[in-house]
Amino acid sequence: MSTYLDWAATAVPDPDIIKASYECAIQCFGNPSSVHQTGQEASAVLDDCRKRCAKALGVKKEEIYFTSGGTESDNIVLLSLLKRPSRGTVLVSAIEHPAVLEPAVVLADGGYKVAYLKPGADGIIKPSTLEKSLTPDTKLVAIMAVNNETGAVQPVHQLAKAVQDYAARCGHKIHFHCDAVQAAGKVALDFADPAVHSFAISAHKIRGPRGIGILVLKNAILPMVRGGGQENGIRPGTENTGAIYGMTLALEKALAGLEKNSAHASSLMDRLLTRLGQEKNYQIIPECRKPGDTNYSPYILSLASKPIPAEVLARTLDDNGICVGTGSACSNRKKGQSKTLAAMGVSDDVSFSRIRVSIGSTTTQDEIDQFIDQLDLQSRILRKALH
Amino acid sequence: MSTYLDWAATAVPDPDIIKASYECAIQCFGNPSSVHQTGQEASAVLDDCRKRCAKALGVKKEEIYFTSGGTESDNIVLLSLLKRPSRGTVLVSAIEHPAVLEPAVVLADGGYKVAYLKPGADGIIKPSTLEKSLTPDTKLVAIMAVNNETGAVQPVHQLAKAVQDYAARCGHKIHFHCDAVQAAGKVALDFADPAVHSFAISAHKIRGPRGIGILVLKNAILPMVRGGGQENGIRPGTENTGAIYGMTLALEKALAGLEKNSAHASSLMDRLLTRLGQEKNYQIIPECRKPGDTNYSPYILSLASKPIPAEVLARTLDDNGICVGTGSACSNRKKGQSKTLAAMGVSDDVSFSRIRVSIGSTTTQDEIDQFIDQLDLQSRILRKALH
Repeated sequence: MSTYLDWAATAVPDPDIIKASYECAIQCFGNPSSVHQTGQEASAVLDDCRKRCAKALGVKKEEIYFTSGGTESDNIVLLSLLKRPSRGTVLVSAIEHPAVLEPAVVLADGGYKVAYLKPGADGIIKPSTLEKSLTPDTKLVAIMAVNNETGAVQPVHQLAKAVQDYAARCGHKIHFHCDAVQAAGKVALDFADPAVHSFAISAHKIRGPRGIGILVLKNAILPMVRGGGQENGIRPGTENTGAIYGMTLALEKALAGLEKNSAHASSLMDRLLTRLGQEKNYQIIPECRKPGDTNYSPYILSLASKPIPAEVLARTLDDNGICVGTGSACSNRKKGQSKTLAAMGVSDDVSFSRIRVSIGSTTTQDEIDQFIDQLDLQSRILRKALH
Repeated sequence: MSTYLDWAATAVPDPDIIKASYECAIQCFGNPSSVHQTGQEASAVLDDCRKRCAKALGVKKEEIYFTSGGTESDNIVLLSLLKRPSRGTVLVSAIEHPAVLEPAVVLADGGYKVAYLKPGADGIIKPSTLEKSLTPDTKLVAIMAVNNETGAVQPVHQLAKAVQDYAARCGHKIHFHCDAVQAAGKVALDFADPAVHSFAISAHKIRGPRGIGILVLKNAILPMVRGGGQENGIRPGTENTGAIYGMTLALEKALAGLEKNSAHASSLMDRLLTRLGQEKNYQIIPECRKPGDTNYSPYILSLASKPIPAEVLARTLDDNGICVGTGSACSNRKKGQSKTLAAMGVSDDVSFSRIRVSIGSTTTQDEIDQFIDQLDLQSRILRKALH
């Protein structure tokens, strides 16, 4: 069994939750749209899950839309702009996940002007940067809660509030969307924030089932994808009752354990940062990140062991039983430098050597120590070989 | 335990398949995009499933795209037209599922002309009707393989061939899409047919997991929904490995057992048609449908017990332990007459009384007899009460 330190790509599933999900899929198999008892049993599960997810997140039941995952949740909101009668500007942070950056390109093709908000060297979008970018024709702003590569926690409330204030002054509406895939159930986030109109959440990042997510949506929008009218017309397709049940359990467990898990992750992350920060061969990304810094998720760390190429280091660690990421798993198939690191001004050579270590609630100190030992050992060997 | 005769809404899941799916989700939990061993194990499962699904369907591995279900498969193809540089005409049959009819409305909003192909009174689209409707600006034709309300089997090959011949004469390309959700694994269908460019398949209709489907796609298209580039850019989002594995098992089992299951379903359906056909109070829809008629799926039957409203009859049957549908489960929340029946010229009073009986591989003769007995009994009581 290898040491799994790639939780940001996908969490180690909770076997009890996955089992409960599968049992529900068998027991409550009816189509929730069917009016007979078998259908209504499934419908009741769905309704109960919607209430429980809403309660866990602190939002209204009517604001919960079940989707097939984070990517779909992001796309529903962004692509809905194509159904609006007039075009305008869309502001997205330059450090968004492809699930936001790519539909933004579709919006650009569809006549929208897309502008990218640059983070500081710390990987954080400043409210002042956003304020300067807002224009009277801005229709949507999308900024994630926690960056999937650096763990940088964005000041979502301040950013959204800046947009809200600007919109109020202009007398028009601007939708603020937040991709909360790496934040939900991991770091504190106010889903009831009236300045944020939608959040994307994925179940498999919090030990729940794959292929299921939530769109928290407070505004009426017109979706692009259409069908049988499920999820109040926002997300068509027969509802995935079993997976929704599993996600509900995962969300409740993650949110109930947030502080405890976060404290555990922080202690492990601080151990990592302290040990690696002492060693000049390693570079923490961003360099300003220090132990105890709450501007970064305790679950995600980017670091470079120059001049070793990230892929070589990751493969070597893998050969020695340790799984780490080399960036966003989703963008692995797209070669080239990380957009997030480039936007932060990280140099190409550092970016080239960057690996991502991401942890979860079951990660142990032993695993962290094992990683550090292997990183030290393999880096030494590889550095020698490269000279 | 009630008698479940609503398989067209969703099949009774195969517990072994759902269990295998769940075990795979736990054992091969890695993100298939991750380059480490945990990711590559998942990637290997995915690759194996793709090969097996392709083999089962008789298509190329590269033509299999895993989606979140039938609705998404349909939408990917239809909405891709919005990414084309020029508009034109889209022909959809008037009896399509909302997963095709609704995105067609989005295409209409986006500048396409949408024309609807009317079936005959038998619920079948004639190739001659299609031929007359083709125009030089036709960009896409969408006709389902088996209608979800009447079970009418469409002559997909002849229809697609007519389009192919017309396109060849005109010297331009017309995409032929086939929603095979009620056909795949149930009735004979040639997925390798070069005249058909795409097929939508759903796993939960063939006893597999919910929230997973296949798009068989032979042409390059530009999808609307974008993200991490999974499924060759056609369907983004972390791949649902466990569900894909379950779907593979369900598809293999359904296709391997197609003839045997179909013979079983035919014998049950013929029993139903024979018994109900003798009784003047019942009306088979369409009326021309007789026992042994291979123009209809042996798994689906629409019938009316006039003048009893379908909802009343279905609810009464449900109270007596029998689950039947009242049309397409997906359109239950949209009040009003069935578009399929209206297009066939079925009168409003018949349509108003129409229930749908749909069966599956585990349906027994006892269940059919129980249904007939209850239908007789409850119809008699309700008719008396209505007088």
